[in-house]
Amino acid sequence: MTEAARPRAVALGGGHGLYSTLTALRRLTDAITAVVTVADDGGSSGRIRRELGLIPPGDLRQAFAALALAERDGLLDEPGTAGHGPDEHGTRWATVFQHRFGGSGALAGHAVGNLLLAGLFEVLGDPVAALDEAARLLRISGRVLPMCLEPLDIEAEVAGLAAADGTPRWIRGQVAVASTPGQVQRISLRSASGEVPRACPEAVRAVLDADIVLLGPGSWFTSVLPHLLVPELRAALGQTRATKVVVLNLIPQPGETAGFSPERHLDVLCEHAPELRVDAVIADTDAVPTPERLRRAAASMGAHARLAPIAAHGHVGRHDADALAASLREAVHVARS
Amino acid sequence: MTEAARPRAVALGGGHGLYSTLTALRRLTDAITAVVTVADDGGSSGRIRRELGLIPPGDLRQAFAALALAERDGLLDEPGTAGHGPDEHGTRWATVFQHRFGGSGALAGHAVGNLLLAGLFEVLGDPVAALDEAARLLRISGRVLPMCLEPLDIEAEVAGLAAADGTPRWIRGQVAVASTPGQVQRISLRSASGEVPRACPEAVRAVLDADIVLLGPGSWFTSVLPHLLVPELRAALGQTRATKVVVLNLIPQPGETAGFSPERHLDVLCEHAPELRVDAVIADTDAVPTPERLRRAAASMGAHARLAPIAAHGHVGRHDADALAASLREAVHVARS
Repeated sequence: MTEAARPRAVALGGGHGLYSTLTALRRLTDAITAVVTVADDGGSSGRIRRELGLIPPGDLRQAFAALALAERDGLLDEPGTAGHGPDEHGTRWATVFQHRFGGSGALAGHAVGNLLLAGLFEVLGDPVAALDEAARLLRISGRVLPMCLEPLDIEAEVAGLAAADGTPRWIRGQVAVASTPGQVQRISLRSASGEVPRACPEAVRAVLDADIVLLGPGSWFTSVLPHLLVPELRAALGQTRATKVVVLNLIPQPGETAGFSPERHLDVLCEHAPELRVDAVIADTDAVPTPERLRRAAASMGAHARLAPIAAHGHVGRHDADALAASLREAVHVARS
Repeated sequence: MTEAARPRAVALGGGHGLYSTLTALRRLTDAITAVVTVADDGGSSGRIRRELGLIPPGDLRQAFAALALAERDGLLDEPGTAGHGPDEHGTRWATVFQHRFGGSGALAGHAVGNLLLAGLFEVLGDPVAALDEAARLLRISGRVLPMCLEPLDIEAEVAGLAAADGTPRWIRGQVAVASTPGQVQRISLRSASGEVPRACPEAVRAVLDADIVLLGPGSWFTSVLPHLLVPELRAALGQTRATKVVVLNLIPQPGETAGFSPERHLDVLCEHAPELRVDAVIADTDAVPTPERLRRAAASMGAHARLAPIAAHGHVGRHDADALAASLREAVHVARS
């Protein structure tokens, strides 16, 4: 199997956006590494993080589920590169991972996979070893890694919130940032120790060794941008010879990116990481009212803008995995030729 | 491999007692079925049971851990019947199963394996399918089954509790019974529906097909006796052609059997199941002050009493797995010859 047929892909992100990317990527390759944000402070993840002091497991769990279910559904498109075929074991465990306890008690809302990952973190000590063990359980061929090895907090400077003197205010926490009624101006990351966040070394290595690196889609400030604020990851993005692709969202996210145009999403990346160069920007045709502006914004980052109908029918805000996979394949092909 | 070298063994019990039996049995055979009580209402198990309405997973989890760790340590003694050898995967997952979350939050004290079993119960719907999936995860060659498919409550008639007229009182729940300062007279089982408890069909089948069935050691009223109060299991114990062995405790349990002599333990079985016949009663030499009385009590159940030094050195109340295995092997040999 040639490198072109099984490129080493790295997807940076978190939450539902990363789920989409992984599902699409799995149609191109089975050599996928997900590098996942660790700043979630809401829901089951937030409770586990606060109670046990662990990295929040929810976005990691979602990435596992995406890869395990793609393993079942998404055989590789390329002739001669079929995947391992449907795997009942992996699918069953992915369903268990995603299952949430009901009721109104102490366990209500906890995803079983979050609790299992928390247990593996505590028993094995090393989050990467724990995640590799979970990967074996789910029989995925890819790898899921945290962006950093300790939980982080997102802080955002937000304008438009009621304040006597009209000055921007700082708010803290992924939930607060993602749902703010104000306009997020910029974000920063804080570790509990107050020091500059250190990247997970295996994540840095994956970016350096990759053939493709994807950024987005997803909650722009809270799932996509954080990776650029980890100095070692940002440096790796500058050094890697991978084809770098930004995948834009289909619709602005209420709260953190309400009213943001597609090109504004790119501006935000540039404002936080001015040196960032990318090869392609993928967007849905219907989500781009002013294609020329997007092309200019993309070009300013060194990128070719690729517009195509990549929205799923009947699922607002969700990418069609096959269409996104086709766009990714073309973007890589153009960048390499 | 002959039947004699790999007898089909069934161990009835719960908690630490069952853990000992399984660890010892694993030295005789890898064809083990644990049939576990489902009346626990304390600790992590009790919280899961009350919150989610599931069978309490703790004793099932303990049985898994015993079999998984025995899989690592306890290769079969018989020449030519070596087990599968140390299995790091199974051992690692057994450690994760047994791990308890710390702290003082909502998860504190929950064993990871209890939460995982609860998730499997809810996702797969069928407790037996869920337990078989867990057995695959832990790579054990035996099987762990619940006594019944729904959670049960133990009720006990207890004498010696302060009461104006000195009459016995009924108390309810495994924790209350196991720790009562009164003298337990007899127990009964209640299901939530109020109906006679129905046995797990696979457990009945295992008893009928067994070559050896073990009862005890363990908390006598709350872990050993309950199996005799499930009519279908009790009938299967009458019908099976297996060698039936009662293993007595090393020390009386404070609370439910405080001050009980070894022969009193047998009397309790007879009072609850007068028709019960067993082939052997195994006891530690030092735990039997009046061997002749024990021999008579055993004989009244059709059993040969086998006294041997089977207590572990340095662990009060714990059986030595090798010594217990040797006694079991001899008991089976005598019964069969």
